[in-house]
Amino acid sequence: MKIICSKDQLMYGVNIVSKAVPANTTMSILNCILVDASGDIIKFTANDGDLGIETTVEGNIVDHGIIAIDAKMFSDVVRKLPDIDVEIEVGSDNIVKIKCGKLNFEINGENGESFTVLPYIEKNEAVIISQLALKDLIRQTIFSIGNSDTNKIMSGIHLFINNNKLKVSSLDGHRISIRNIELKNNYLPMEAIVPGKALNEISKILTGGAEDDVNFYITKNFVLFEFNNTKVVSRLIEGNYFDVNKMISQDYETKIVINKKSLYECIDRSMLFSKEGNKKPIVVNINEDMLELVVKSPLGNMDEEIEIEMSGRPLVIGFNPKFLIDALKVIDDENISIYFVNPKAPCYIKDENESYIYLVLPINLNSSYN
Amino acid sequence: MKIICSKDQLMYGVNIVSKAVPANTTMSILNCILVDASGDIIKFTANDGDLGIETTVEGNIVDHGIIAIDAKMFSDVVRKLPDIDVEIEVGSDNIVKIKCGKLNFEINGENGESFTVLPYIEKNEAVIISQLALKDLIRQTIFSIGNSDTNKIMSGIHLFINNNKLKVSSLDGHRISIRNIELKNNYLPMEAIVPGKALNEISKILTGGAEDDVNFYITKNFVLFEFNNTKVVSRLIEGNYFDVNKMISQDYETKIVINKKSLYECIDRSMLFSKEGNKKPIVVNINEDMLELVVKSPLGNMDEEIEIEMSGRPLVIGFNPKFLIDALKVIDDENISIYFVNPKAPCYIKDENESYIYLVLPINLNSSYN
Repeated sequence: MKIICSKDQLMYGVNIVSKAVPANTTMSILNCILVDASGDIIKFTANDGDLGIETTVEGNIVDHGIIAIDAKMFSDVVRKLPDIDVEIEVGSDNIVKIKCGKLNFEINGENGESFTVLPYIEKNEAVIISQLALKDLIRQTIFSIGNSDTNKIMSGIHLFINNNKLKVSSLDGHRISIRNIELKNNYLPMEAIVPGKALNEISKILTGGAEDDVNFYITKNFVLFEFNNTKVVSRLIEGNYFDVNKMISQDYETKIVINKKSLYECIDRSMLFSKEGNKKPIVVNINEDMLELVVKSPLGNMDEEIEIEMSGRPLVIGFNPKFLIDALKVIDDENISIYFVNPKAPCYIKDENESYIYLVLPINLNSSYN
Repeated sequence: MKIICSKDQLMYGVNIVSKAVPANTTMSILNCILVDASGDIIKFTANDGDLGIETTVEGNIVDHGIIAIDAKMFSDVVRKLPDIDVEIEVGSDNIVKIKCGKLNFEINGENGESFTVLPYIEKNEAVIISQLALKDLIRQTIFSIGNSDTNKIMSGIHLFINNNKLKVSSLDGHRISIRNIELKNNYLPMEAIVPGKALNEISKILTGGAEDDVNFYITKNFVLFEFNNTKVVSRLIEGNYFDVNKMISQDYETKIVINKKSLYECIDRSMLFSKEGNKKPIVVNINEDMLELVVKSPLGNMDEEIEIEMSGRPLVIGFNPKFLIDALKVIDDENISIYFVNPKAPCYIKDENESYIYLVLPINLNSSYN
């Protein structure tokens, strides 16, 4: 194999596919990037079995061939190259010679034939969404997925498509995050539970904006995302997702409207006293036009008042501040509405048309607060 | 005690004196900042016994008094305050009440009387240097100090003043760094071994430029630096410093002139193969108008050629790349001169008037290479 590429193209390809290389240091075929110049184009692929990424790299193919190169070493070498054309040549001994001006590198490759290529995905109808929208949806829901050791299904994000609606949900036993958006096209109902880890890696390589589309295809066991010159294939989590609609109540006894930034900064301050395993709840006291937040801990105490609009009954309720702040972090509205039922029932942060719903369970103050 | 300050002034004071707080998590008086409003001005002080920093903070003193506050907690609270005036009040119970609009914090203070204030330094003649020059000198020599566990004296930086000359030296057994600069004034000979740790912290708070002066005073056991409204006192390392003049030779057999950036980037690349305990030397082959750098390791091989001007004899010599690159990093010249004697003797990177001299010991290729 012999190819000539710019340093930029090599860096681009390596950075994208490296997201599918497991964080593992033993040299093995799983830690490799497959450089495939067997056809008319140069393709880079990485595949850990659950997540696979393939992208095309611009360049000239002088001699056809394939080689697998340790991703970490390949990435390190490419990053350190001067910014000129790079020649990559591999002989029958699988030694990779990288030439760049008066600079020569030699690193060991592995036989490309032993690399597991991406599974073939039979494409049904493509669901189309902008890169920006998909990246936002991931960011706005991924923080509340659960640990895969405890519950495999909770470690995924649920995508549900019906007509022109896409509903994205995640939950971890303490909270639920839901985002609803409208798609450009209409679809028959379909759903998938995509591993949070895969979506996290995908969101890192979605650099396009609102004008750049992603096409994705859901099959029984896989989801395939296609964008730019890149394909990402993720294995799906098997099973039925939770019926989140049943968990969300429309009833409330207390509703407040509050400035998001003021609440965010106030809770952020309160977390000074709930760090390092000292899990003190924050106490939220809602009364007429004022929300008072109080935290008492061995490290210190804080109280702060924030003006609100309130309807319904006064309320005292306790929370883990992290769960509230995670939700506030991904809401862009200047003012937000929060709905409460009673001190033992979840609260809901949601907008009028329910483009977002964040449910957070409270902490029982009688048992843990003093 | 009751004082009123802006958030900015509090942050400024806390950030400066925190540099003298040891990185230690148990709450004790050593981990505290002393807030002293017993006189006409507000002073913040931190002191770990070896290094002490004191600075003044603008604000109004409503009630005089002193209090010691845990530096980490004080810093965290101040950072999270809204950007308005802050009232700090301490009662007889040593509880620190921090008020800012509708926000109240309470944290525990410690009796200020138990805080160890800075030692009194009898000021002899002030040595005057610009903040920028002192910061540069520290950066250009501190990387080659030794570990204090192995040799206490090597863990310091040697300052030697005579007439209008300041010579700054450091060494760690593998290399020596020397910087010579001219001062504005003339002084009688004096010298000090200042702990590298103290100079590292000082360089972080030297934010002034070439127009802003530092005055420093060397006594038998201490050095006092004064700049802006800040005093830094460091205990000196006892003993006689190495006679570095005797270690530096003026003789050479080979001299090269090389582009610094090309050499830096070449060595930086070669370090890809000398990471993770795999301490392979780089082999430098100097011959006529070319320097060839070769590294061979189980991870891979590299060779690169760089054009040079050479005088004297051809030479093959081995180095630990880190020692060369540390020196190159702090040299600003576009082209540098390197002087060699033989493959077992140190090389010198220095300019014509010896404003800098960096000595680096080679690695014996016969014993460690191949």
